[in-house]
Amino acid sequence: MFTIIAERLNMSRKTVREQVWKRNAEFVVAEAQKQAKAGATHIDINAGGDPGKEIEDMKWLTEVVSGATNLPLVFDSANPQALEEGLKLSNRSGSIINSITGEKKRLKDILPLVKKYNTGIVALTMDDQGMPEDYLGRMAITRKLIKTIEAEGISLERIYIDHLVRPASTNPGQAKFILQAITDTKKEFPQVHIALGLSNISFGFPARSKLNKVFLALLIAAGCDGAIIDPCQPEMMATLFSARAVLGLDEYGMEYISAYRAGKLK
Amino acid sequence: MFTIIAERLNMSRKTVREQVWKRNAEFVVAEAQKQAKAGATHIDINAGGDPGKEIEDMKWLTEVVSGATNLPLVFDSANPQALEEGLKLSNRSGSIINSITGEKKRLKDILPLVKKYNTGIVALTMDDQGMPEDYLGRMAITRKLIKTIEAEGISLERIYIDHLVRPASTNPGQAKFILQAITDTKKEFPQVHIALGLSNISFGFPARSKLNKVFLALLIAAGCDGAIIDPCQPEMMATLFSARAVLGLDEYGMEYISAYRAGKLK
Repeated sequence: MFTIIAERLNMSRKTVREQVWKRNAEFVVAEAQKQAKAGATHIDINAGGDPGKEIEDMKWLTEVVSGATNLPLVFDSANPQALEEGLKLSNRSGSIINSITGEKKRLKDILPLVKKYNTGIVALTMDDQGMPEDYLGRMAITRKLIKTIEAEGISLERIYIDHLVRPASTNPGQAKFILQAITDTKKEFPQVHIALGLSNISFGFPARSKLNKVFLALLIAAGCDGAIIDPCQPEMMATLFSARAVLGLDEYGMEYISAYRAGKLK
Repeated sequence: MFTIIAERLNMSRKTVREQVWKRNAEFVVAEAQKQAKAGATHIDINAGGDPGKEIEDMKWLTEVVSGATNLPLVFDSANPQALEEGLKLSNRSGSIINSITGEKKRLKDILPLVKKYNTGIVALTMDDQGMPEDYLGRMAITRKLIKTIEAEGISLERIYIDHLVRPASTNPGQAKFILQAITDTKKEFPQVHIALGLSNISFGFPARSKLNKVFLALLIAAGCDGAIIDPCQPEMMATLFSARAVLGLDEYGMEYISAYRAGKLK
């Protein structure tokens, strides 16, 4: 199983922000259902359009999206109050908080919510010293984050590591370290999941979706078992099915062939 | 640099066979030039339509193709006489013989031609005992082949290993061993090249090009520096450029951006 956190309902996107502020439920329902139909396992909701309105926007988004789909939600905020208001309204099995980092304040604010609501948690590999730029730094912070979270009694299966990929345009060769870090994270902590936000890889390049989908294939080969993507891009989903078939993760290609028959391999 | 051996001029393909037998030079010239324009570094010619005609067909193909392009040719045959007739007519810097295996007779027949004409050589990882089905078997035969060829005074840069990928439909998980074997072959013998015939991976599946291109991306990440492909499939070339940009092999994505500007990223 691959965790597909659908990223479209994010208020940093202008259209989403405008429609949420108009309280256009029809738009939000359609976005949620389109992503679910395309193969999402989780729907991310990010209400960070205006800090002053975030809590109200998160509540409204939670109500509308949880009414539109049975999938668990991913509450995407650094504001503990926004997270808690969302969780009070919808806390299905599989809900995830997105995200913590190794930053002390964020850990202190957010880990109690992970425990109280028994959610999963996306952990970004950075801390109060910033974001380490090499393989060893990223692995050191990965280990430290996992240990910190586990010490709170949160089981390893509830942790989703995001190794924070930087653009290939400005950090050539960095993707190789990320791939290695993913392989080694899964080797050291087989129960821990990965939930990488991958589109940053193509920042600054033209034809970004070509790079994003190739990177998704490489991530899967490295052992990555989840990503934050737009499942409505048919080529992303086709790449996911193809990589799993090629690698024998989808044994004898049964999922691939089903997807083909359902007209999903575009 | 990535070695792109263009595979279209192969008489096991019905159209090619028919046009060669008609001595349709216009068709062959167009095929060769189309592949060169699409980014081939070498043009493979395979005259294996009818064993009784192979030598004559190879001579004709060599004359027509070497007149159509300045690229070095890859002489694709198990028949030493066909290989030699081709090489007599065109032996540019970079010419390659495709292929030997660890089979004693084939080594004995073909290595003298590699030496005499100072060509490169594609070596398939099988021998008189057949094709090993696991990682250790493939690595053992890779090492043995390289040592046998090197013992003849042929330098490592002239060797192109094809690790012989089997279909994912019948051999699930085998691609993982191939990828590992490529990584380890390049680690042990950095001067040796890879020239993998990759399309076998998708045999038995629908929408084969989707699997082929994902596999190409995985091969590049594993350290593969060459493949036998159809460069006229725009998505294959786009995948090649994308994977190299993502991995920082194409530093700062300069080749990727040039390809984009030239309208090649389709």
